[in-house]
Amino acid sequence: MTQQVVNFNAGPAGLPRPVLERAQAEFLDFAGTGISVMEHSHRGKAYEKVHFEAIALTKELLGVPDTHAVLFVQGGASQCFATVPMNFLLPEQSADYVITGTWSKKALSEAKLIGQTKVAGTGDVEGNFIKIPKQSELKLDANAAYCHITSNNTIAGTQWHNFPNTGSVKLVADLSSDIMWKKIDVSKFGLIYAGAQKNIGPSGVTMVIVDKAWAAAASQKIPVIFRYQTHIENDSLYNTPPTFGIYMAKLVLDHLKETGGLDGAEKRNREKGRILYGAIDGSGGFYKCPVETDARSLMNVVFRLPSEALEEQFVKESEKLGMIGLKGHRSVGGCRASIYNAVTVEGVKQLADFMGEFARKNG
Amino acid sequence: MTQQVVNFNAGPAGLPRPVLERAQAEFLDFAGTGISVMEHSHRGKAYEKVHFEAIALTKELLGVPDTHAVLFVQGGASQCFATVPMNFLLPEQSADYVITGTWSKKALSEAKLIGQTKVAGTGDVEGNFIKIPKQSELKLDANAAYCHITSNNTIAGTQWHNFPNTGSVKLVADLSSDIMWKKIDVSKFGLIYAGAQKNIGPSGVTMVIVDKAWAAAASQKIPVIFRYQTHIENDSLYNTPPTFGIYMAKLVLDHLKETGGLDGAEKRNREKGRILYGAIDGSGGFYKCPVETDARSLMNVVFRLPSEALEEQFVKESEKLGMIGLKGHRSVGGCRASIYNAVTVEGVKQLADFMGEFARKNG
Repeated sequence: MTQQVVNFNAGPAGLPRPVLERAQAEFLDFAGTGISVMEHSHRGKAYEKVHFEAIALTKELLGVPDTHAVLFVQGGASQCFATVPMNFLLPEQSADYVITGTWSKKALSEAKLIGQTKVAGTGDVEGNFIKIPKQSELKLDANAAYCHITSNNTIAGTQWHNFPNTGSVKLVADLSSDIMWKKIDVSKFGLIYAGAQKNIGPSGVTMVIVDKAWAAAASQKIPVIFRYQTHIENDSLYNTPPTFGIYMAKLVLDHLKETGGLDGAEKRNREKGRILYGAIDGSGGFYKCPVETDARSLMNVVFRLPSEALEEQFVKESEKLGMIGLKGHRSVGGCRASIYNAVTVEGVKQLADFMGEFARKNG
Repeated sequence: MTQQVVNFNAGPAGLPRPVLERAQAEFLDFAGTGISVMEHSHRGKAYEKVHFEAIALTKELLGVPDTHAVLFVQGGASQCFATVPMNFLLPEQSADYVITGTWSKKALSEAKLIGQTKVAGTGDVEGNFIKIPKQSELKLDANAAYCHITSNNTIAGTQWHNFPNTGSVKLVADLSSDIMWKKIDVSKFGLIYAGAQKNIGPSGVTMVIVDKAWAAAASQKIPVIFRYQTHIENDSLYNTPPTFGIYMAKLVLDHLKETGGLDGAEKRNREKGRILYGAIDGSGGFYKCPVETDARSLMNVVFRLPSEALEEQFVKESEKLGMIGLKGHRSVGGCRASIYNAVTVEGVKQLADFMGEFARKNG
């Protein structure tokens, strides 16, 4: 039998085991239809039920108000980097971007190809993205088309714990790596987008939650397929959606609901963060988290060891114990534990125990 | 036990049973790694092997020349309707579109939002798309940015059996519904795109085969994510790809190779067409195929019965026998049997037998 694996991958990430087991069990015969869910027409009853349940579950879990629509599109967050300004950044306007890491920079860089932009704030401290700017540090343009933030930064290991107040300017947020980690007030956002492959499901599905009135007023000059309005009008069935990915997302959302909803998820995630940051802070300086304390991410915990050689050894030994994905992003080095919803408290305890032992042996 | 289903869905369509069985068997533990293939990082060894094998298999099966790259992107054919002109239709140019049905019209309509276009030919005969224009009927613009065709028309039931000669103008083809049905000369195309959900795999994956030099010379003003050149330079790993969909495509291509490659597929597909069109033509007029004989599709066989009431009854009775998906597209009515690669000769024989019986009873 294969060793039990604890998956700390940054994304695509682990999925809840009961979800995978259910998908496997009904893989060849979905809901007694005799065929796989991925063999069903996206216009047939069997798939449509899954599709609309996934939308309804998202609304229920996040408390999405009637002013907003839940969409499933393709292309990942990287495509939203382009389609957000294509829809909402009109020629005479400028959009604000708060830069807190690699993904914010990529979003800004695509927007610059579409229209005018301003940097409204940064998480950069002497070349390292180790903080989240405070409200008082933001230079917000009161006339901006929107203000864009990256709510959680997978590479830097930082996270917005209080979303900025942008007044009457629409707030747009990339929640790819921390959607569904706890409840949020969706009404505060003009648009939220999130690649599914961290907290929602497999890669290839992008969740978008958008203010319907805003989408209706967006650019009509861009291709129909890239208008959020198109997908609102067609319930995300304008063209063939990634049906199997949406089905998996639906199972993940079902599981989330069954395990206490977002309040349950938040409780578990805070406990996981407490354990892991505790292991770092209690190591007498063997492990160091470079991130400012109030900006620490509860999704991606980054830490350094006394040397790169020890970091390499740490990753190697952890892998032997079935803990995978602990190498930091290639652009920054170090170590990183991504502890999305599917990583259990037990899994995090196992890592913390190993960290303690490793520090004792090598400290 | 569930009745054996024969799946004539137009797409998402059936997948080969051995492929589904293999995916199910390794769903929880891919290649002895202890986790699902969809839980692997797209930058890890386990997934990368799948990814590059899918590309290599496509090259091998289709005989893709070194001048062309094989890409996996997201968004389906509907997104390529937009990204093709975004990349290749520059402001001072015009692109030719041959209109042979709903999907060609949609492709044209997106292109019109980007630049200038001309209709170079049509399959329309008095309001119905029942033919494929002959070479002599095309009005090709020798200076066109490219000439776009839809190789197989799922709704109309027509198919290009000889691709047009566009001289030095790049030929762009939507092969969503007939890629991999037989060998083709890829060198004749500037770009081929195909949503996976008919012959290649589940929905959510789009295969693109593009002339590398042409892609390198395409527009640099569009968002980076929409440039084919971006995906060429990054081996379709610029952003997180739909990893599970590409894995399924890889299994389908493996299966295709094991069952005689594209020569084997062509032989089976011609046999299936012979049986099904034989059942129509041999019915003494009970079944009628509205399509001109030399334009008949070997992927989507459309046919009418003497009345709409009989068509409804036909669909109902066929469903009771486990044959699903035989209702024609909602825009044209009638019946349609989609007989993509995964539909077996046996499955088509079963349908032909039922058609004979139904005609005898109701003729």
